[in-house]
Amino acid sequence: MSCDYIALATPGVQQLTPYVPGKPVEELGRELGVRDIVKLASNENPMGPGARVLAALDAVKPELSRYPDGNGFMLKQALAAKLNVQESGLTLGNGSNDVLELIARAYLQPGTEAVFSQYAFAVYPIVTQAVGATAIVTPAKNWGHDLEAMAAAITQNTRVIFIANPNNPTGTWFGVEPWEKFMGSVPEDVLVVLDEAYIEYVGTQGGVLNGLNYLQQFPNLIVTRTFSKAYGLAGLRVGYSVSHPQVANVLNRVRQPFNVDSFALAAATAVLSDTEYLQKSRLVNEQGMAQLIEGFATLGLDYIPSAGNFIVVHFQGDAGPIYRNLLREGVIVRPIANYGMPESLRVSIGLEPENQRFLQALERVL
Amino acid sequence: MSCDYIALATPGVQQLTPYVPGKPVEELGRELGVRDIVKLASNENPMGPGARVLAALDAVKPELSRYPDGNGFMLKQALAAKLNVQESGLTLGNGSNDVLELIARAYLQPGTEAVFSQYAFAVYPIVTQAVGATAIVTPAKNWGHDLEAMAAAITQNTRVIFIANPNNPTGTWFGVEPWEKFMGSVPEDVLVVLDEAYIEYVGTQGGVLNGLNYLQQFPNLIVTRTFSKAYGLAGLRVGYSVSHPQVANVLNRVRQPFNVDSFALAAATAVLSDTEYLQKSRLVNEQGMAQLIEGFATLGLDYIPSAGNFIVVHFQGDAGPIYRNLLREGVIVRPIANYGMPESLRVSIGLEPENQRFLQALERVL
Repeated sequence: MSCDYIALATPGVQQLTPYVPGKPVEELGRELGVRDIVKLASNENPMGPGARVLAALDAVKPELSRYPDGNGFMLKQALAAKLNVQESGLTLGNGSNDVLELIARAYLQPGTEAVFSQYAFAVYPIVTQAVGATAIVTPAKNWGHDLEAMAAAITQNTRVIFIANPNNPTGTWFGVEPWEKFMGSVPEDVLVVLDEAYIEYVGTQGGVLNGLNYLQQFPNLIVTRTFSKAYGLAGLRVGYSVSHPQVANVLNRVRQPFNVDSFALAAATAVLSDTEYLQKSRLVNEQGMAQLIEGFATLGLDYIPSAGNFIVVHFQGDAGPIYRNLLREGVIVRPIANYGMPESLRVSIGLEPENQRFLQALERVL
Repeated sequence: MSCDYIALATPGVQQLTPYVPGKPVEELGRELGVRDIVKLASNENPMGPGARVLAALDAVKPELSRYPDGNGFMLKQALAAKLNVQESGLTLGNGSNDVLELIARAYLQPGTEAVFSQYAFAVYPIVTQAVGATAIVTPAKNWGHDLEAMAAAITQNTRVIFIANPNNPTGTWFGVEPWEKFMGSVPEDVLVVLDEAYIEYVGTQGGVLNGLNYLQQFPNLIVTRTFSKAYGLAGLRVGYSVSHPQVANVLNRVRQPFNVDSFALAAATAVLSDTEYLQKSRLVNEQGMAQLIEGFATLGLDYIPSAGNFIVVHFQGDAGPIYRNLLREGVIVRPIANYGMPESLRVSIGLEPENQRFLQALERVL
């Protein structure tokens, strides 16, 4: 073979490094022969699915051989009612990852720029790189987004700004005041993507904002959300964005016609009405967060205060060996060296006994 | 608002017209208040899911809140064994639509060309347009692909050729001889996508080929397949490609990390071992095809002989009113005016009573 099929790809794709997911439980089992594994690596809901969702899945089973409703009629109707938004502003995605990618594919191309923060979600650089656009990374401030620096980074080539609130992997968040100042300074032809994947976990920290409240005022705002976290549907991939209808029109053109499957649509529609499940998710997270923070204090470890369902803990020196020793203890957490944080690990909040297993394993490893 | 968010999109996306799916049963119910609807519009498997698949779905339910295995380990292993191919050449997609899009995003960009045939699958022009590449459409020959014309259309800017065998919507197919002649004439730096979405339905017509047999000889060949048709999993979105490992490496970089969900992975792995289901799918299709052909003959209607699970029937003049009158009779078929075939309708093969309902409704409508 004389042809190089990597060199034949577009320049953006040639330079692309794929996302590295948390290690799946089965994979660790295969690799190290470890059993009884605790996974605190992917910010999943540790409660597992609720009864209402499971019933909805049973109900959709007979429809398995039919294509999904490509318009997501029922889910869009439920979302519009629940969030008090127009259906015409909704775009459904195969997880919010899909929506983030749609935005990049619709509005970025070689010669344009996307702005995001140091330590921001890994999907922003990936979707920017895949379409050959230029990433402008602004320095973080106390591990979080420096909105003033992000506004200052805007040039005439900027098309999209990616912002996560709370941010993953750091768990940092910002409130109404800096946000309103920021939005007031962004030109109308620069799209601001406010990624609220973890918004359902946010308590009363620092006057946290709800992006949906700003859609009327700012037509360049796109709020993205997901069913993979507090709603507990990570295995079925559903996310969405709320935006100006014109933006939704564009994103829905680029969207694959059946990007969200029938089971995902049914599960998301069902869980949206399960307020009890959501409340319990929040409570379990709050208690687990307190448990981990107390454990870190006992072990003398520093951490980043978090508004999500995960927390970053710092170590002295390379955290890689600690991660690998935890694996041997049957505990999977998330290394974040690829985020430029080689001396820290990200730990998802689990159920009480899972958090306990992690803290005990960590003590042994240290 | 002074900004036009459609004009802000990339040039390719601004011109994009989305895919139009077959009308969902619920939608027809809502629109016309019709009940007891027969849908023969999306080339779905009319048998519905098999017991083995349903059991696999039950088994994966407890894992709903966990992210899918982003590498699709189990499914890839099963596919590699079943197809006798290397796992390193496999790329899993959210339906084969996803894989077709990955190929376009990885290898096409403004200034490059994709070649496909008149009357070919609608996703080829869409994925080409979305990335701003140029579509070169070669005229069909007897409703099917003219492989000689396609080879002759190759220029120095051609990166991808999309070919469906059998083709959708026409059901036409070609055999080993023209294919081998064609492949022998395509330069190694032009990727040939052989879309075999309907390959499992193919009988003994005209020495139909199996694309997998040519992967060793032609490193520029990508064979795509789907679980949405004969395998009956359209609602869960799983497709895949088999290619040179270098091409798979590129496609897997562009792929979203969790593009195929846990339920889809489990269902596809299970159905792959259900040879009885596949055999019955074929048999039901063969019998239904004979039933429709006989019905068309009785009604004096012309049709295109098909190797798929659908058939195109011709009318005198605009088929639009016939389509709409069939809807009122509770029968959904597929208008194909958007394929440049305004005087024809595409009808999927259903179960015996469904085919009967359609033929009776058609007789009344005519």
